[in-house]
Amino acid sequence: MNDFMKMFSLTKPIIQAPMAGGIIKPRLAAAVSEYGALGSLASGYLTPQVLEDQIKEMFELTEGSFQVNLFVPADNGTPNDEDVQHWKQNLPLCDKASPFTVIKEEWDDFYAKIELILQCGVKYCSFTFDLPPEDAVKELKKAGCGLIGTASSVEEAILMEERGMDAVVLQGSEAGGHRGSFLKSKGESSIGLMALIPQTTDVINIPVIAAGGIMDYRGVKAALTLGAQGVQVGTAFLICHESYAHPAYKQKIISENETTTRLTKLFSGKEARGIVNKWMEDKKLDEVRSLPYPYQNTLTKPMRQQAALQNDPEQMSLWAGQGIRSLNKETSVKELLDKLCQENITV
Amino acid sequence: MNDFMKMFSLTKPIIQAPMAGGIIKPRLAAAVSEYGALGSLASGYLTPQVLEDQIKEMFELTEGSFQVNLFVPADNGTPNDEDVQHWKQNLPLCDKASPFTVIKEEWDDFYAKIELILQCGVKYCSFTFDLPPEDAVKELKKAGCGLIGTASSVEEAILMEERGMDAVVLQGSEAGGHRGSFLKSKGESSIGLMALIPQTTDVINIPVIAAGGIMDYRGVKAALTLGAQGVQVGTAFLICHESYAHPAYKQKIISENETTTRLTKLFSGKEARGIVNKWMEDKKLDEVRSLPYPYQNTLTKPMRQQAALQNDPEQMSLWAGQGIRSLNKETSVKELLDKLCQENITV
Repeated sequence: MNDFMKMFSLTKPIIQAPMAGGIIKPRLAAAVSEYGALGSLASGYLTPQVLEDQIKEMFELTEGSFQVNLFVPADNGTPNDEDVQHWKQNLPLCDKASPFTVIKEEWDDFYAKIELILQCGVKYCSFTFDLPPEDAVKELKKAGCGLIGTASSVEEAILMEERGMDAVVLQGSEAGGHRGSFLKSKGESSIGLMALIPQTTDVINIPVIAAGGIMDYRGVKAALTLGAQGVQVGTAFLICHESYAHPAYKQKIISENETTTRLTKLFSGKEARGIVNKWMEDKKLDEVRSLPYPYQNTLTKPMRQQAALQNDPEQMSLWAGQGIRSLNKETSVKELLDKLCQENITV
Repeated sequence: MNDFMKMFSLTKPIIQAPMAGGIIKPRLAAAVSEYGALGSLASGYLTPQVLEDQIKEMFELTEGSFQVNLFVPADNGTPNDEDVQHWKQNLPLCDKASPFTVIKEEWDDFYAKIELILQCGVKYCSFTFDLPPEDAVKELKKAGCGLIGTASSVEEAILMEERGMDAVVLQGSEAGGHRGSFLKSKGESSIGLMALIPQTTDVINIPVIAAGGIMDYRGVKAALTLGAQGVQVGTAFLICHESYAHPAYKQKIISENETTTRLTKLFSGKEARGIVNKWMEDKKLDEVRSLPYPYQNTLTKPMRQQAALQNDPEQMSLWAGQGIRSLNKETSVKELLDKLCQENITV
């Protein structure tokens, strides 16, 4: 049992990735917690009220460890009119009247969720998209809450340690879904785990959790060999029976392979890895016109909702990591965790 | 000792990457062979005559195993006039008179080098940039030569096995220098090793050698844990005393980090990972205008040569992988190999 497992009261060095958008609900997260790994609720895109219901349900379903993940609101700039007009003309399903320049005050939600976490006595909390603000960190730590940051480079991991995080999820280039990068870099900010883990564990002292492309015990063992103390798994949980991912999305994950994903801003305005579909192909040259997050996300929402209703994966966001060739059928959460923990993992 | 080590008569599961361009000469490759790892001569950009001299020197310097690497010529198309004119106007050092439409017949060289390998009794041979042609494979195998292909996806690795390769180097997205990809893919063809190795070893039977971002024994152990039988290391050899890399290039590798490299076609027309410099930044928007390989390479040669004479790294190609934060000083080949083999590597 390493520091990470002790700190988060786990018997398995695995975190189920907090995937936002209604896919992960308590029935999946609680199954993970029951196994001895860290189940995760994703509060992104949820109202505080819905989050409260989910937290209460978690406490009913399990006595195991679980965390709540929060998006840290970040100012990514406002869209320029030309790009907004471009999309209004080129996106059939976009709500032509929607006010792109007025976005809900996300910080209100953020602090409401922090309050909720404190009130409900949630023990662990993680952050994505930026450094969590100092006042929130202070409050949570005072209450004894264990904190996890997300980083995609060594520099970001150092800042997370300095901000008082108890552990940091290191997101490799292999990872599906949104990039957690928050610092500008001269080159690519997507680094493969094989290079990223040892370079990071050489310079920080908090436990590192590796995320990206890991599908079974080989990846878990390799990550621990490189210096990580745990592994975060996302894509593989999406196709579990307990996941609420759309059936057409699950089918895509099962049928595609390692060379059919790429990073795109076309769905949300923030870089994310997903399976290439018609929307991504058709609008390839408009990549640079993507509005800053979360505007592009608001913009494409009607299209994505309609696609879901029509079982059409070609206009859904199909977030997935580079390990999907290994995913060939739906399993239960327990079967997946058995595969991840198949060998006694000791390093 | 695994199959790969047996087949290639090695006591260490390490290949020194065959890096072309005059950087690796027999003194470095032979030091690797003497250690019990696989030293490599890179025949790319060398005339058959120079290659012959190098092979003879290798046989004088070592009785250990070494290979000769060959670029497999591939038809990447011819440049369009508009792009050629664009570069002639925007690249001060380009030879305005040089005939971009007439390129030396590369296949002549390829078969001359195959002949040389057979005549000199070189025992091992590897290929980059495409499947080696069947006739060459047949000749080399008849002579008992051990063959290694290069792949960057599972599909490419399968084709290499079918073509009769004895082992395959699997190039992860972390790797520096030119991508060995030769199949078009729907998404990104750069896959992180953490995802790429297990997906590949699940479906092919020849030994897999992992390449990309590996700097010490942790990466070697992790790669073997994931199913590889060996590791190929490039960037770390560049800063060895025995390397002929330009001092300004070595200094860049030592001072930069994991977020300051990216893939570019601006130097050669073929995607390659290098440290971002002024040339890459200034011509960022012209990336799409890069002429097909090897035309862009010919085009930028005078600029690169002049930059080397002036000790100016801002216009050299600074190929490097994503592990460079770990490289802090020049070492000897022996010290580097000690670091890679520090622990008894058994899986």
